[in-house]
Amino acid sequence: MFELAEVGHKLSKEEYDREAPALRTDLLNLQRELKTANFPVILLVGGVDGAGKSETVNELIAWLDARGIDTHAFGEPSDEERDRPEFWRFWRALPPAGSIGIMFGAWYTDPLERRTLNEVSEAELDQSLQRIVDLEQMLVHDGALIIKIWLHLSRDQQRKRLKALRRDPLQSWRVTDEVWEFHKQYDAYRVVAERTIRKTSQGQALWYVVDGGDERYRMIRVATILRDAMVERFAEDVQKEQLPGPTPDSPVPPEHNLINLLDQSLSLSREEYRDEFARLQALLNRYSRRLAEKHRSMILVFEGPDAAGKGGAIRRIVEAMDARSYKVISIAAPTEQEKRYPYLWRFWLHLPRSGRVTLFDRSWYGRVLVERLEGFCRHEDWRRAYLEINHFEEQLHEFGIVLVKFWVAITDDEQMRRFKQREETPHKQYKMTSEDWRNREKWGAYEAAACDAIERTSTDLAPWTLVEGNDKRWARIKILRTICERLQAALDAPEPTEE
Amino acid sequence: MFELAEVGHKLSKEEYDREAPALRTDLLNLQRELKTANFPVILLVGGVDGAGKSETVNELIAWLDARGIDTHAFGEPSDEERDRPEFWRFWRALPPAGSIGIMFGAWYTDPLERRTLNEVSEAELDQSLQRIVDLEQMLVHDGALIIKIWLHLSRDQQRKRLKALRRDPLQSWRVTDEVWEFHKQYDAYRVVAERTIRKTSQGQALWYVVDGGDERYRMIRVATILRDAMVERFAEDVQKEQLPGPTPDSPVPPEHNLINLLDQSLSLSREEYRDEFARLQALLNRYSRRLAEKHRSMILVFEGPDAAGKGGAIRRIVEAMDARSYKVISIAAPTEQEKRYPYLWRFWLHLPRSGRVTLFDRSWYGRVLVERLEGFCRHEDWRRAYLEINHFEEQLHEFGIVLVKFWVAITDDEQMRRFKQREETPHKQYKMTSEDWRNREKWGAYEAAACDAIERTSTDLAPWTLVEGNDKRWARIKILRTICERLQAALDAPEPTEE
Repeated sequence: MFELAEVGHKLSKEEYDREAPALRTDLLNLQRELKTANFPVILLVGGVDGAGKSETVNELIAWLDARGIDTHAFGEPSDEERDRPEFWRFWRALPPAGSIGIMFGAWYTDPLERRTLNEVSEAELDQSLQRIVDLEQMLVHDGALIIKIWLHLSRDQQRKRLKALRRDPLQSWRVTDEVWEFHKQYDAYRVVAERTIRKTSQGQALWYVVDGGDERYRMIRVATILRDAMVERFAEDVQKEQLPGPTPDSPVPPEHNLINLLDQSLSLSREEYRDEFARLQALLNRYSRRLAEKHRSMILVFEGPDAAGKGGAIRRIVEAMDARSYKVISIAAPTEQEKRYPYLWRFWLHLPRSGRVTLFDRSWYGRVLVERLEGFCRHEDWRRAYLEINHFEEQLHEFGIVLVKFWVAITDDEQMRRFKQREETPHKQYKMTSEDWRNREKWGAYEAAACDAIERTSTDLAPWTLVEGNDKRWARIKILRTICERLQAALDAPEPTEE
Repeated sequence: MFELAEVGHKLSKEEYDREAPALRTDLLNLQRELKTANFPVILLVGGVDGAGKSETVNELIAWLDARGIDTHAFGEPSDEERDRPEFWRFWRALPPAGSIGIMFGAWYTDPLERRTLNEVSEAELDQSLQRIVDLEQMLVHDGALIIKIWLHLSRDQQRKRLKALRRDPLQSWRVTDEVWEFHKQYDAYRVVAERTIRKTSQGQALWYVVDGGDERYRMIRVATILRDAMVERFAEDVQKEQLPGPTPDSPVPPEHNLINLLDQSLSLSREEYRDEFARLQALLNRYSRRLAEKHRSMILVFEGPDAAGKGGAIRRIVEAMDARSYKVISIAAPTEQEKRYPYLWRFWLHLPRSGRVTLFDRSWYGRVLVERLEGFCRHEDWRRAYLEINHFEEQLHEFGIVLVKFWVAITDDEQMRRFKQREETPHKQYKMTSEDWRNREKWGAYEAAACDAIERTSTDLAPWTLVEGNDKRWARIKILRTICERLQAALDAPEPTEE
């Protein structure tokens, strides 16, 4: 894999001066074209120490228009980053559509180094690489153009280069003791890098191994790769399937309709409710504080039709909590700004810090519910969303976040009754719009999409809890009790796993 | 000041039930009206422990539509926050226009506590309070409605309340040892709180002291204050002075025109340049690494007419730096999203972490240059901007950030020459738009605005460096040398002050 990059390519000053201006003009034109495009370019720059990552990126930034380009290096994570799953800091650094994001190493740095230093097993490396493949695939499906450059040096080249750097007053600081130490691991690193590149070079996110020995050759090569990839991407510009109309209504057979199978006659008397409610609120209060003491966080997801009682349930939960410790995020349609990022981006950004709780009133499931039904995304987008959601929730779980998902169900009749009641109650009128009435016409399709979503995303790590919502008291007690049970299990578990 | 709040107001359940629904409906209607308004509401909730801050906010959130409301508590700052001036975390938490931001304590918590515990002198408290007044004034001028609630309890009331809380299983956790300890400081705290409220209760950001003893009274009172303030604000809705046309051109008398006084014949030969350039780049490299080792950061600001050579100078600077350590921020017109925040918001958000460097290609000076000239803001907005900018830069300075501001000047003729050259160079064509030619017509007005800006914002803490830009070599050397000198001074200084 690295053979070609060890041939010792060189470019004379004359050759460089001949090629550079045209390349630069091409890149500037492409960058301008990109500004109005609906996808971002992610240029990931990895490679061995001394191969010129920083110099190449510096030069590229100088060539391009600084507007619409952003560079990210990832050193030690900050505490805000350590408080969230590993990939949080990469999500927050993703470039929006229309711009170029240059990332040093990014999600590759850590797995590569840790495997080289034997801190993780080969199986664990492969697991990390699979997660990377999932992420990149998601980004590619979302439209991103990902270009991954590996700047290579042979062992000898690296040693010579590090020595040369050490002599250069402008560069010597780069050659720290760690760099020298790591150079001793060259052979191990090379094996790990080979495996990494092999396992993560996929169709739309290819690696390009570039000989890093000669700065002129390296620069022209990287710029050419970037240019060609962008030209190709614009040429494709398949505009494939445009936003289709809504998915045809495919009613679920009654015996498969989990939601219809709920016993909506379940109810609680006022007295039963009052006592149990007080007990559960006190319990929730205690557990949520213990969770915070253990520096763990919780995410509660509420889905269900309009007027199912999501908001009311959320209010009863947060009543038992410190207002400083939680956030309620109500999800509406994405803004123009949010649309320039992958679908899950805004949910990633809302993840709570350790010790905090986020309650989502509607959530990332919008993709496979309203967006599917209304045709707000392409067929392929919501179809792949099930897997993306499962990957996302797996990362929450592995980080030790207690994730509880509620589907609050009510019957068609009950919704009608509540809509009418809302229209008659002054402080509830604001909740009713003509859209709510229109949505009722899609009841069947919505329920079918809901059944699909629940079936495909109720996993051992992140199960759905279906709530019989016709009786509000029953529903609120069931929700509170479920949260308490999940919290108790999480707190009792020896390891950060909540089941 | 607190006398009225110690009378012991109470509200019966009947009174509460009579008042609450109408209040709630009013608030919901106001909140809906706010959504399309061009200002935010900032509800700041402070007060003594046990006076019901968290409960009141909880209840308010329950009353309102969770969409368009955001709550912020400020505990220990994160490392990302400690890496920036004190107010950074408040800026990042500001609500956008059209929404309500509820803040616990916010910028008051720290000065209050520290003075109570005698960690700062009264003079230092007053200094902090003045800074708060400046911030709030800026927000108010920017359109924000600021409502500050102080929930009060007398010493006896507080003791009783803390004891009662301790008995309540849902509340006992609030009464930590620190809270008890702090209770012992009640008298001192009261004095400090009195002073704080007195010195920060200004026209558009008034404090409302509310008796916190009875939860029903407290809730109705806070909701009423919020409602009345919003009603009043909408009624005012002065829409005062709308965006006026551009400011009339007021040429500066030649002898006052600092820019015209520059000796544009200064130049360097290629040889002089080459040696000095290499020496300065090496120096800059060394100094910038030493700065990072000291966990300090640097901000470089570049202003000047089109084609003055700002971009070229920036490239020569960053060449000497690690691509991982700096960001170049090119400032264009604010986006729709950015326009929903105070003018300086996006610059605050771009402040570098400790050890990093941010280079601004154009900057917050846009307010008093292009926005003034083009009439993009009201007269009063750019007039007050000088003071706001000075306050902003003072905070950068006090945090130990090395701030260097360059005005790169060229003559009218030289700009014309460079424009023509750009049109003939393929990789520079992208820089030229019809706007550039149009801007030339305002040369005189632009120079006058520039002279104003330089004169009003060249302070001891943040002086401007005027650069003779007609000779690019001269300009680049002067810029590099200035940065090195400022860095050297900052590194030699015993304390974090760069002059």
